[in-house]
Amino acid sequence: MNPTITAFAQSPDRGRGLARDMAVRWALEEVGRPYDVRLLSFAAIKEPAHRALQPFGQIPTYEDGTLALFESAAIVLHIAERHSGLLPDDANARARAIAWMFAGKSTVEPPIVERSMALLLEADRSWHAERLTMLDERVRVRLGDLAQVLTGRDWLAQDFTAADIVMVTVLRRLGGSELLKEQPIVGSYVARGEARPAFQRAFEAQRAVFAATAK
Amino acid sequence: MNPTITAFAQSPDRGRGLARDMAVRWALEEVGRPYDVRLLSFAAIKEPAHRALQPFGQIPTYEDGTLALFESAAIVLHIAERHSGLLPDDANARARAIAWMFAGKSTVEPPIVERSMALLLEADRSWHAERLTMLDERVRVRLGDLAQVLTGRDWLAQDFTAADIVMVTVLRRLGGSELLKEQPIVGSYVARGEARPAFQRAFEAQRAVFAATAK
Repeated sequence: MNPTITAFAQSPDRGRGLARDMAVRWALEEVGRPYDVRLLSFAAIKEPAHRALQPFGQIPTYEDGTLALFESAAIVLHIAERHSGLLPDDANARARAIAWMFAGKSTVEPPIVERSMALLLEADRSWHAERLTMLDERVRVRLGDLAQVLTGRDWLAQDFTAADIVMVTVLRRLGGSELLKEQPIVGSYVARGEARPAFQRAFEAQRAVFAATAK
Repeated sequence: MNPTITAFAQSPDRGRGLARDMAVRWALEEVGRPYDVRLLSFAAIKEPAHRALQPFGQIPTYEDGTLALFESAAIVLHIAERHSGLLPDDANARARAIAWMFAGKSTVEPPIVERSMALLLEADRSWHAERLTMLDERVRVRLGDLAQVLTGRDWLAQDFTAADIVMVTVLRRLGGSELLKEQPIVGSYVARGEARPAFQRAFEAQRAVFAATAK
């Protein structure tokens, strides 16, 4: 039996792979595990049936036999723990890679999401320009820190790990913004992630959902 | 050898246990592991020596023999994996508890931190009142979701786990705000966490740092 993930039937990102199912699809492609997808409308993710799987009414979820999981990074970690190739064998290196997964979600992602929300929800407010300047600066600080870490290395740990799946998908939410271009070391890191065949298969799979519904 | 954690020499929370060393202290107290603390000034956490341990210039870090970790939730997970009592034995239940750790840090914490930052950094801006209303609502949605989950249960999983350490410390950042009082189920959950002897020992340990420097 394949595991089943949930994703948006009509993703707000219009097939750009910015929704949070992308990291899970990518991890599954890296380990060569086929999966099924259940597409959900915006209404359906807020209904009790989905909330029983995802208490905050979000996507993705992950069902595999008797296991039901939520939170994309937790799902990626679960996949990495049950297949080889996404976490180092050495115990210390493994713990460090997991630390980077949390860093992606709780230190790097919040200012990026906050900036996206300001662009989406506050564009018509009188304060928008002034606040965006503050938000850009918060993102810049994180990207600067990441650039230091990534100087002279291809991935956060020595080899590609689940942490890179989390971090690259977080950074991709900056989209075509100038902020990523200001830090070419970080930009190259994202491009390295996007160049992986598993990323490309995952990207095409989510884009096919958009293409089918956009017809 | 005891592990060594880092914490603020002068925590901005003035001993209220809201800094991110609190979760790590609590986890170590739960498993009965003594630890040493290295206190750092605000200047020191941004210096290269500390950034080698914590790439974003934050606290806490965790050093145990040859292992150096950062990100409080990752440290809590590491402690939980190497001692008994903080994660379920059943593999599925364990994966769910880890999902709740990520939910605490990446779904519940960001709007709470954003609200704290607005109170701290934007109180004199023209937009403050209008924006605070938006931020309160975002926190309310998360607390409402959590209240549903916690109805009829004491902890996020069946028994107390590392996920409750993460979630309770995240929710405590709401401090004495009315938002927590609006959801008594969530408020009671936080109080249950705070009533644990291990929480109290951890709380006293961090308060002692404040008391000593405030003299």
